[in-house]
Amino acid sequence: MNLIILLYIIGWVLQIEALFLTVPAIVGVCYHEYNCSISYMIVAVVCLVLGYFLRQQKFDANDIYPREGFVAVSLSWIFLSLFGCLPFLLTGEIPGFINAWFETVSGLTTTGASILSDVEALSHASIFWRSFTHWIGGMGVFIIMLAIMPLAGAHSMNLMRAESPGPSVGKFLPKIRDTAILTYGIYITITVIICAAYLISGMSLFEALTMTFGTVGTGGFGIYNDSAASFTPLQQDLMTIFMILCGVNYNIYFCLVFKRFKEIFSFEEVRTYFLIIFASSGIIAWNIRHLYPTVEERLRHAFFQVGSIITTSGFSTVDFDLWPQLSRNIIILLMFIGACAGSTGGGMKVSRILILLKSVQDELHRIIHPHLIKKKHFDNRILPEETLRSTNAFTAIYFVIFFISVLLIGVDELDFTSDFTAVASMINNIGPGLNSVGPTCNFDVYSTFSKCVLIFDMLAGRLELFPVLILFMPTCWKRY
Amino acid sequence: MNLIILLYIIGWVLQIEALFLTVPAIVGVCYHEYNCSISYMIVAVVCLVLGYFLRQQKFDANDIYPREGFVAVSLSWIFLSLFGCLPFLLTGEIPGFINAWFETVSGLTTTGASILSDVEALSHASIFWRSFTHWIGGMGVFIIMLAIMPLAGAHSMNLMRAESPGPSVGKFLPKIRDTAILTYGIYITITVIICAAYLISGMSLFEALTMTFGTVGTGGFGIYNDSAASFTPLQQDLMTIFMILCGVNYNIYFCLVFKRFKEIFSFEEVRTYFLIIFASSGIIAWNIRHLYPTVEERLRHAFFQVGSIITTSGFSTVDFDLWPQLSRNIIILLMFIGACAGSTGGGMKVSRILILLKSVQDELHRIIHPHLIKKKHFDNRILPEETLRSTNAFTAIYFVIFFISVLLIGVDELDFTSDFTAVASMINNIGPGLNSVGPTCNFDVYSTFSKCVLIFDMLAGRLELFPVLILFMPTCWKRY
Repeated sequence: MNLIILLYIIGWVLQIEALFLTVPAIVGVCYHEYNCSISYMIVAVVCLVLGYFLRQQKFDANDIYPREGFVAVSLSWIFLSLFGCLPFLLTGEIPGFINAWFETVSGLTTTGASILSDVEALSHASIFWRSFTHWIGGMGVFIIMLAIMPLAGAHSMNLMRAESPGPSVGKFLPKIRDTAILTYGIYITITVIICAAYLISGMSLFEALTMTFGTVGTGGFGIYNDSAASFTPLQQDLMTIFMILCGVNYNIYFCLVFKRFKEIFSFEEVRTYFLIIFASSGIIAWNIRHLYPTVEERLRHAFFQVGSIITTSGFSTVDFDLWPQLSRNIIILLMFIGACAGSTGGGMKVSRILILLKSVQDELHRIIHPHLIKKKHFDNRILPEETLRSTNAFTAIYFVIFFISVLLIGVDELDFTSDFTAVASMINNIGPGLNSVGPTCNFDVYSTFSKCVLIFDMLAGRLELFPVLILFMPTCWKRY
Repeated sequence: MNLIILLYIIGWVLQIEALFLTVPAIVGVCYHEYNCSISYMIVAVVCLVLGYFLRQQKFDANDIYPREGFVAVSLSWIFLSLFGCLPFLLTGEIPGFINAWFETVSGLTTTGASILSDVEALSHASIFWRSFTHWIGGMGVFIIMLAIMPLAGAHSMNLMRAESPGPSVGKFLPKIRDTAILTYGIYITITVIICAAYLISGMSLFEALTMTFGTVGTGGFGIYNDSAASFTPLQQDLMTIFMILCGVNYNIYFCLVFKRFKEIFSFEEVRTYFLIIFASSGIIAWNIRHLYPTVEERLRHAFFQVGSIITTSGFSTVDFDLWPQLSRNIIILLMFIGACAGSTGGGMKVSRILILLKSVQDELHRIIHPHLIKKKHFDNRILPEETLRSTNAFTAIYFVIFFISVLLIGVDELDFTSDFTAVASMINNIGPGLNSVGPTCNFDVYSTFSKCVLIFDMLAGRLELFPVLILFMPTCWKRY
């Protein structure tokens, strides 16, 4: 392990965080919350100075091998969240280190689960920062770093690969830096469009900005205690549409940029994603017909909740924990499927599910025709053995971590449904679960120990398991 | 698909079933339940005659390809259970076809879940038949068929492979027929030893026989309404030991027969299996210390329930649904792990879990050393790529079937914990679940539709998914 590279990258990440921290400080000034602003500025300065010292030693960018990439990404996210939670502690708005850390990890990993029972009691600066962490974490800090940092080595791809969700990373431009700039450009464009639409629909600037961050990052932190219930039907419909569009594979938007319109409809993953959304919403709308008088309401609430859960956002317009069991079971299933690869959403990703189903189909074919070997295809391309192997390993470790987590938080003596959906919600970066952690409840019901387990799950889920697991491999830390 | 082979094999299976059906008929005569005996004999004669007609056409045994093997096994199990449930309907002891079928499938797949609220109301013949189906289904009908039927072709291995649990089948003897005879010999020897031990411990002959069938087949049908709670502590301890020994990979017993004692300790799977049992029982015994006054009681109940669940038997000495959540979460986890491959137990099998963990470890190693390719080992042998691939496909389809089943039985509007543990209990062939399907409850809470889903899960779980799934592949049914 090349420690100089690690320190250098963490230094960069902290300096980027310093930049981000000035935004809530400005918000604080606008709302005359000067004490809050000072807290945010103090942390920003600490990050800036520490970051400066960390990235003093020079190194060769060609030394960034996959393991450096994975470890750097993991450690950076841990540092990001540790420094990101300091303002909550300094302002005293979230007492207790683990609580503040939980809230920040939940924000950065775009989970959106809260330990707060009264969000509205927070200062505007802190409400803003909570939502802003969704926006930062949605695209990740590495793409922005690659866009601005002077790393020329071809191996810096290893950084992007470690942070990007999904089984494989598409390369649209030959240079990493150009890809990074374009990706962030698309991200910012989408943000601007959504924010404008929210403003036009009648939200205040503060509401529009914070809800945009939650939507684009597929986060789910609400700014009101009732999540999204108090918004108008129009605003809720807009949120549904934008959440679903933000859960789409960003390759679609690349195709739009490059005017490769024909390709847009060739993505199997996106087609399946929409199919799942329409089918689930249809069944739920039928299943909840006795709860809401009009068809419009049934469809609105069904599509909103389905869009919110499959994109792993976690906003809610109603307490879906009161829905019939069939609808709740569908919601639990959607938690695991998750959004498309290459989006800001979490979960297993639609493409992984498709790859797994293809491997099952392949296995059945081998039984029927033992000597006929067919190559598996995905999006009209041959599916590399490597992707298949890593998808299988992902699935295996996913369920191992899942069940061990459920086991561990069992010490708190809540019921199985709460424990199961809490872990499902954390590892898939969603937000609410059912029962004790339902949409109207919060995660403060868990003990400090369980919160630590859930923090691990959120980080492991967001970084797609391997980068976090590799930290525990002794061979990873050996010097060259 | 060669239909003549299918009919021939189903014919054999029905004739074997006819033989088995005479046993409860004799039991009925002993207890003066002549009406019952006549019902069992009628079904036996029907099976005998039908079987005779089905196996009239001759074929070449070399034509049994994997697909014929898989389809024959699936269809045979469906026919076995369809004819096996007829006596319950004829005697009128279980009204309703789906209920009778559920009970029979539950018996044959060694699940042990019941739809009866009062088992003790049944006739002795029917209680015996219920338990006897565990013994038949535990080892499967194909090994007995291969031991007696005149099939010389090397391809008849495909039949054994389709029915045997676990990722791969060990071959100790060059000839299939000899392997089959030896396997059944071991099975009968174990049965005799356990039955003798139960008799010595003070059970009546009827109790000893029925409980032996449930233990050897890792079934779990009780003959009393309180499952195993009314047996003496000594008898419960004996059951614990025998259940655990019946969940061990039968290769161990092959080694004993061939006096290859050194090899016994080389099985990674068996070592891990015992490690899991001791660790889980220890934690549970500590976790339930406030419920039972003495250490002996805590250990006895902990080991009994752990042994019962990991071997997927499903007997219970206490209502573990009243245990603390940590213990219940451990029990749910054990449901998925299951027994060793090559045993009569169900679940994912310890060896599959080990193979999956090795593939994860391998993936992490590849990130650290991208150019260093290591062969994966299992039991000191190189793990074939084929086994790994099929294990991965198994895991994928296992969870797909699992979640879809939970979704489907959601229509009955029970709670998530009941639905989740019901499906876990069915697909892993255990018996009891939690909440509405806990050890003191029964599966009659579910509707006919859900019972059909659960019947599918039991069969799919017992036959390890692929044989059942292949029935739904249109290409499988094409003529050559």
